[in-house]
Amino acid sequence: MSGTMNDNIRFLFYPKTVAVFGVTDTPDRVGYNILAAILEGGYTGKVYPIHPRHQEIQGRKVYRSLEEIPEPIDLAVITLNERFTVETAELCGRAGVKALLCNAGGFRETDEKGNELEKTLISIAQKYQMAVLGPNTLGLVNTNGNLYSIFYPINVPTSNISIICQSGGVGLSTIQTTVDEGIGINKFIGVGNCTVLDIPDYLDYLATDDSTDVIGVYLEGAADAAKLIRTASRVAQKKPVVVFKAGRLSAASNYTLTHTGAMAGTYQLYEDIFHQHGLFTVDNVGEFVAAMKALSLLPLPEGNRVGVLTHTAGPMVTALDYILSHNCSLPVLADETIAKVKKVLGSDNPPVVLKNPLDAVGLGFSRPIFSGLAEVILQDDNVDLLITCYVKHKTWELPAEEMVEIAQRLKKPMMVNLIGNIQACRPDQMVMHGGGVPLYTTPEKIAVGVAALVHYGKQRKGGANFDHK
Amino acid sequence: MSGTMNDNIRFLFYPKTVAVFGVTDTPDRVGYNILAAILEGGYTGKVYPIHPRHQEIQGRKVYRSLEEIPEPIDLAVITLNERFTVETAELCGRAGVKALLCNAGGFRETDEKGNELEKTLISIAQKYQMAVLGPNTLGLVNTNGNLYSIFYPINVPTSNISIICQSGGVGLSTIQTTVDEGIGINKFIGVGNCTVLDIPDYLDYLATDDSTDVIGVYLEGAADAAKLIRTASRVAQKKPVVVFKAGRLSAASNYTLTHTGAMAGTYQLYEDIFHQHGLFTVDNVGEFVAAMKALSLLPLPEGNRVGVLTHTAGPMVTALDYILSHNCSLPVLADETIAKVKKVLGSDNPPVVLKNPLDAVGLGFSRPIFSGLAEVILQDDNVDLLITCYVKHKTWELPAEEMVEIAQRLKKPMMVNLIGNIQACRPDQMVMHGGGVPLYTTPEKIAVGVAALVHYGKQRKGGANFDHK
Repeated sequence: MSGTMNDNIRFLFYPKTVAVFGVTDTPDRVGYNILAAILEGGYTGKVYPIHPRHQEIQGRKVYRSLEEIPEPIDLAVITLNERFTVETAELCGRAGVKALLCNAGGFRETDEKGNELEKTLISIAQKYQMAVLGPNTLGLVNTNGNLYSIFYPINVPTSNISIICQSGGVGLSTIQTTVDEGIGINKFIGVGNCTVLDIPDYLDYLATDDSTDVIGVYLEGAADAAKLIRTASRVAQKKPVVVFKAGRLSAASNYTLTHTGAMAGTYQLYEDIFHQHGLFTVDNVGEFVAAMKALSLLPLPEGNRVGVLTHTAGPMVTALDYILSHNCSLPVLADETIAKVKKVLGSDNPPVVLKNPLDAVGLGFSRPIFSGLAEVILQDDNVDLLITCYVKHKTWELPAEEMVEIAQRLKKPMMVNLIGNIQACRPDQMVMHGGGVPLYTTPEKIAVGVAALVHYGKQRKGGANFDHK
Repeated sequence: MSGTMNDNIRFLFYPKTVAVFGVTDTPDRVGYNILAAILEGGYTGKVYPIHPRHQEIQGRKVYRSLEEIPEPIDLAVITLNERFTVETAELCGRAGVKALLCNAGGFRETDEKGNELEKTLISIAQKYQMAVLGPNTLGLVNTNGNLYSIFYPINVPTSNISIICQSGGVGLSTIQTTVDEGIGINKFIGVGNCTVLDIPDYLDYLATDDSTDVIGVYLEGAADAAKLIRTASRVAQKKPVVVFKAGRLSAASNYTLTHTGAMAGTYQLYEDIFHQHGLFTVDNVGEFVAAMKALSLLPLPEGNRVGVLTHTAGPMVTALDYILSHNCSLPVLADETIAKVKKVLGSDNPPVVLKNPLDAVGLGFSRPIFSGLAEVILQDDNVDLLITCYVKHKTWELPAEEMVEIAQRLKKPMMVNLIGNIQACRPDQMVMHGGGVPLYTTPEKIAVGVAALVHYGKQRKGGANFDHK
């Protein structure tokens, strides 16, 4: 044995060799789709499909058993039914496999027989110290190694955001929303029944994973909630953890009970405890991605004082509604800044109310004026981070490159709400994201991003600049 | 004089002739952009640019004054500064113009001088009974007549949703989000200072507008809140009205004060009163569009009993969190329905928990099974509307056509949450929307859609089927 179960978690994500049990040649089966996802995903390690009778599937030689494979296996993906899953787990243990991904349902979420099978799986995993993901899971994705061991063949951009999900469907919805938001993911972990490895194990693993900087957890319930929260709280001191807790109502809770066997718990209780433990929580997929996106691209602010630059008031009113009820403040700009604003606007008496939020009205369309104002506000010692709002227009352009340069030079967080449809905003978004400035297309999403940043800025940096109301 | 001010509102949206004052040949001016928007938008009436010195702009002959124009003008778009706006309004009144759109700011939102100008504008409008939109507005859009009299040249799909907005920026953000949601708008009314015509006037107009079936109001504050709420409540008995109220915090409220001169009011007070008056409220742009989309495409349900069909549990858990706290219930399926479900699944003992929500697990991928289950659940007398959740996959396809046929035949509301990124979901979305079935891509949005439908179903139809908890 080469290590403990938790040491072996890395083989789930970075195996050099993968065996896939249960591959078939019918495109409507789990085994077929996982193999397709792995092969199409661009995984560069060795893949060994296993089936007792097939010769070749998807252009690959099929092996009849583990023994036939000429080298040790790091990860076995088992797409067999629940009984065969447990039998195969034992064979894998004997053969020195380091990690298992078990897809099948039919364990403790069903009946007593399933519960007994699950106990057997636990004892096998412990005996051989194998890291076991699942059972009853969609699988996992690691874009950092191009490993898509998942029932849904997809390809998504890579980022530094990893998510731990108690639901495959919410995981996929989150992944696809990161695509809509122009960001992508690093790892997706569909935890399934949390039979062997539980959410705290994955949190501890991601805390040490070099390519992960932000962690998201979608949670329906936990067998050991205290441990989960302690672990998340500890990990969050190193990397921001965003918690999306579902199942807040009893009827929905009953529903969650039937699908992963986990108690949904009392929502408000969870929410309060998460806050007490310094964790940022969200209520839905859109907020989940919006929060992680800001944390993914930006440094944490040194305080909670938000500068606002816009050339249209309304969207920032709705963003402020959220931000100001999430521990942020709207500082007064320094006299020196006001003087600089006048200079940028080219007038001692410009048709602009000289305060924060700064609404530059029609003048704000101008590329040098908008970026010039962004610069002087971000320079203000009273401002810890800047949000800006610009409306896409045929005649003018967002000064994307200039704003990226300013944010990088001044080393303070800057974000943009560009008003336009997602597709039309994509080119500017790619420029801004490439330079580490998040670009959102609705005010409510930039607001969640700001709140998440300020939350973790306060957790990590504390200090007087977070006391402003 | 041909009618009262309120009779003349229709000339704002359906003019046969439009004069544009303040056109210039420099592309960074309001006058240039509004003319471009009107011409590029495909408006088929006559457009008369007016300027004392220019001969031709954007390929159009420029007229020196109203007198030079050979026919009566229905709508004058005035893009001049505040003083010239008021002078021109008087000239328009004398010339028998029916409606004015005044873009410039510089009125009561600035100082006492602006306030005096605004009073003069009111007296001119009353003297000639002209319908005046603005001042201090982005303009208006009527996709039903291809009239884009707006500072931002855009082109959007048409629908039966019209929005009244106290912010141009929120209006544009809403319009662009309707594009992301695959729906579009009918009319956008940027009300500006509500100097002459106020929100209740536009509500009454839209109540009679044949191409509008759903009305959205983005509200920061109101001079006469009681009248606004009375009117909205009355109009909502005919057409659903969705209210998006911003400025809930004092700092944000102070901000709204500076930009349209309206008091933001106490948020909670507004919210309570809206509910008492039977109006559905939302908190952000995403919810605003999600609610209007469901109301736009679907008939109102006969009750609040929601059937749920999915093949992945998590997303529906998060949707149920919202739905069940918004007056909806999760009915028990009839024994007869369970029997039909077994038949569709082809087994007396399928690997599926036979209840509502019905999670068909992997079996649900099958086109005939998913649409077959949708049909039998929607047929159940205990079910008033059905939401479904399907995950986009390379191997299987959402049975879009079948589901449209079922929804149309059974005449009950059906909605789909398709999990995938927006672009990938677009083709299915177009099929579903074409058949009157809303397709959303995140669970929180379908949830808001359901809540809005049930809200107005109850307002309009009442009855025992709305009493279920």
